[in-house]
Amino acid sequence: MSVRIDLNSDLGEGFGQWTMGNDEAILRIVSSANVACGFHAGSPAGILKTLRAAQVRGVRVGAHVSYPDLVGFGRRNMDVASDELTADVIYQIGALQGLAKAAGTAVRYVKPHGALYNTIAHDERQALAVIEGILAVDASLPLVGLAGSRVLELAGKKGMTTVSEAFADRAYHADGTLVSRGEAGAVLHDVEQIAKRMLQLVSEGGVMSVEGTFTAIKADSICVHGDGLRAVEIAQRIRALLEDKGIAVRSFVD
Amino acid sequence: MSVRIDLNSDLGEGFGQWTMGNDEAILRIVSSANVACGFHAGSPAGILKTLRAAQVRGVRVGAHVSYPDLVGFGRRNMDVASDELTADVIYQIGALQGLAKAAGTAVRYVKPHGALYNTIAHDERQALAVIEGILAVDASLPLVGLAGSRVLELAGKKGMTTVSEAFADRAYHADGTLVSRGEAGAVLHDVEQIAKRMLQLVSEGGVMSVEGTFTAIKADSICVHGDGLRAVEIAQRIRALLEDKGIAVRSFVD
Amino acid sequence: MSVRIDLNSDLGEGFGQWTMGNDEAILRIVSSANVACGFHAGSPAGILKTLRAAQVRGVRVGAHVSYPDLVGFGRRNMDVASDELTADVIYQIGALQGLAKAAGTAVRYVKPHGALYNTIAHDERQALAVIEGILAVDASLPLVGLAGSRVLELAGKKGMTTVSEAFADRAYHADGTLVSRGEAGAVLHDVEQIAKRMLQLVSEGGVMSVEGTFTAIKADSICVHGDGLRAVEIAQRIRALLEDKGIAVRSFVD
Amino acid sequence: MSVRIDLNSDLGEGFGQWTMGNDEAILRIVSSANVACGFHAGSPAGILKTLRAAQVRGVRVGAHVSYPDLVGFGRRNMDVASDELTADVIYQIGALQGLAKAAGTAVRYVKPHGALYNTIAHDERQALAVIEGILAVDASLPLVGLAGSRVLELAGKKGMTTVSEAFADRAYHADGTLVSRGEAGAVLHDVEQIAKRMLQLVSEGGVMSVEGTFTAIKADSICVHGDGLRAVEIAQRIRALLEDKGIAVRSFVD
Repeated sequence: MSVRIDLNSDLGEGFGQWTMGNDEAILRIVSSANVACGFHAGSPAGILKTLRAAQVRGVRVGAHVSYPDLVGFGRRNMDVASDELTADVIYQIGALQGLAKAAGTAVRYVKPHGALYNTIAHDERQALAVIEGILAVDASLPLVGLAGSRVLELAGKKGMTTVSEAFADRAYHADGTLVSRGEAGAVLHDVEQIAKRMLQLVSEGGVMSVEGTFTAIKADSICVHGDGLRAVEIAQRIRALLEDKGIAVRSFVD
Repeated sequence: MSVRIDLNSDLGEGFGQWTMGNDEAILRIVSSANVACGFHAGSPAGILKTLRAAQVRGVRVGAHVSYPDLVGFGRRNMDVASDELTADVIYQIGALQGLAKAAGTAVRYVKPHGALYNTIAHDERQALAVIEGILAVDASLPLVGLAGSRVLELAGKKGMTTVSEAFADRAYHADGTLVSRGEAGAVLHDVEQIAKRMLQLVSEGGVMSVEGTFTAIKADSICVHGDGLRAVEIAQRIRALLEDKGIAVRSFVD
Repeated sequence: MSVRIDLNSDLGEGFGQWTMGNDEAILRIVSSANVACGFHAGSPAGILKTLRAAQVRGVRVGAHVSYPDLVGFGRRNMDVASDELTADVIYQIGALQGLAKAAGTAVRYVKPHGALYNTIAHDERQALAVIEGILAVDASLPLVGLAGSRVLELAGKKGMTTVSEAFADRAYHADGTLVSRGEAGAVLHDVEQIAKRMLQLVSEGGVMSVEGTFTAIKADSICVHGDGLRAVEIAQRIRALLEDKGIAVRSFVD
Repeated sequence: MSVRIDLNSDLGEGFGQWTMGNDEAILRIVSSANVACGFHAGSPAGILKTLRAAQVRGVRVGAHVSYPDLVGFGRRNMDVASDELTADVIYQIGALQGLAKAAGTAVRYVKPHGALYNTIAHDERQALAVIEGILAVDASLPLVGLAGSRVLELAGKKGMTTVSEAFADRAYHADGTLVSRGEAGAVLHDVEQIAKRMLQLVSEGGVMSVEGTFTAIKADSICVHGDGLRAVEIAQRIRALLEDKGIAVRSFVD
């Protein structure tokens, strides 16, 4: 039996002269790159550069679709009408598909970003609008979302391939939900602790919750970060520990 | 022998709540719709609506790519670096391809817009950057440009299909160049005169210049306008007169 | 005893080449112009043109501040952080003050626009952020808001001058709240009915509710529209009827 | 006799989540801060933070006005129409005045940014449009520009206060023009060399040109950078050396 897991990270999040994160470093670690599409970050020339680097490294590329909010980096809830949200998703996937083709690669999945990601975890109207957008472009594109979220449930009913995601550096409640960022202990910082949790997640199918119980978490992919002080170090350590234990880091798509 | 000509017009040029032109009316007349891609005009939901209407009418769709300048409507020259311009073109074509697929149609050609259109008529660096962008997405896409322009010459050398365009309501000099908008008589307003000129253009291969001589103009397509007081009336009259004389109005693509 | 009322309308809502409404016509009718500041509409040259026309007509100018959402025309809720919202309000007021000075006039009040207007009618956090922004620029600027709204109550407590606003073409419930746009009869269309309601509002201090009772509505200003089929006609009729009955249409500021 | 010079630097050049340069460090060194106004960089909350830091340090604030080009960071030429450019300048100055007031400081001068700065050094039409914008807001605001440039000459004729600027890390030709960035040796990197050149500039009124001659350069202010590897170190060394030699670093405004 072979065990494998996907590691994904957000890339291409600069804009014009502004940079963010360390795309080159993180591309050596992850198997999937969620690439910004211009709505929360990413200008065409910068996106193209990231896509070319992903192609060289053999990292799979996903469309990191967002609300149209550059100044807010897509982190602010917006009550976008359904037809607008659907068209926004289509536009972003299409734009990234064009750039991906130019880079010798292709868009292989879709992962909503930031506030949109969080909203469609529970908001059925917006979730359906996003799903409709993906289906309109390419019904075979997998959708990456929060494990146990409403959008993955709805997408599954529509026959889409869904990818459940866990977060490497976040604490979980006993019911499988994330501890809110505002609460103490919501974000983990210890490199070894994080790596061991992810090993447990993959090998045992869950992690210890803040309530002290073992909690089952479905995870087809683990999200790691490329910005922040020790982000690259954490991501490297996770990959190294997983591989030491015989777990392959590979994308959920071929 | 059958004679045919393409009529094209700029569409999808609203933005959010703002509208421009009369897309529904003009789609009943033209055979090709140059659809805005979001850089000079066009928000995703509005573009999608225009694409659906074009699909219903059987009008071919082209990507109307532009400099990134919403407030200037793409009408201001910008010295965009070549790699940025190439990526901008790819991004816009890709975005429109995504929306076109959702509308049950496809992007069948590329026509640069506004200041970019004028600049690449003579600026080799920017012309090549645009060409490179198109080739990177789909080398089979025809490029629509000013008859006799540098960009068409360069595109031809690269093996691209080029489409030479004439303007229905513009006066020409004896050497085949357009009379500058600033000069008296540069823009024609008489409906019958315009229609008859276009009939002459198609049947005789040229028009009378402001210098009083017959000037040969290569025209695979005639650009008509959808905004302005009598734009729709002019476009209708051109089509009616051409068809009366047995000239079919059909796209340059199948 | 002299009776007077302010009529206000939204102006300067074009953007670059796009136009909206009929600024010239509506400036002949209203006493206050809520001028877009660039966040939901309004590019600098267009705003300046509107301000100059307002100056010529002696119409008072207010800053129509908004969420940063051009494509959504400021009509979509956004959960903007308080410090960002405060800075956004300051930025917009300042920009309009600069343009107003260039036009020989001045910003005399602030009226939040669209989704922001509706949100701060009940959301205390955002209401306080807007108030803080106004106070930071000029504490003497009156704030125009929905009659009976939370933001006016909070502004009053801070010592600000508040201006209660009623809507000419909207139906009211018996408790003084607006009938939601989604409901039947929410928007009135009959010119004479609307004008007579506004006469009643000013002379009797209230209107008939959809429940059939007379409802008191505090109104220092009446909002009329400049776009839409019969908007200018409605505004004209309101002004004419009020003046016929000896009610002066004048701004709430000198 | 007391000798003094102004040191200025570009600040507030982040945008939303994106940062650029080291505002806190550079504010300890310079006497004048050219603060972005939102057109090439700078979102309101970030600008406000920079203005507050400048106020605390007693650093004078100028409006760093730009073409509207966030993705190009204002570094691309644009042929903006004169009335649009004038209104753009007014809008930006006004916006910064509002934020400056909120920060307990004020806009004390104007310095055009990037491509606009370079263009108005020789383009009379655009230079006059910028001048008109400044005059419309506050005719007493000094204009900072390239020593010997057309815009300073024109501004002087209009009665404006002009401030001639030299660049600390740039090589000059014998005729006082800058060596183009594309040429070898155009940008200086040696900390001590740069500091000594600036000492010579202030004490002797010129520097050695690349042609080997002493070239007179009028300099009321020296521009230093806050981003780049050794920018802060260079700025610190310039200030330290000048002060060691009894030259006070002070703004050109009180």
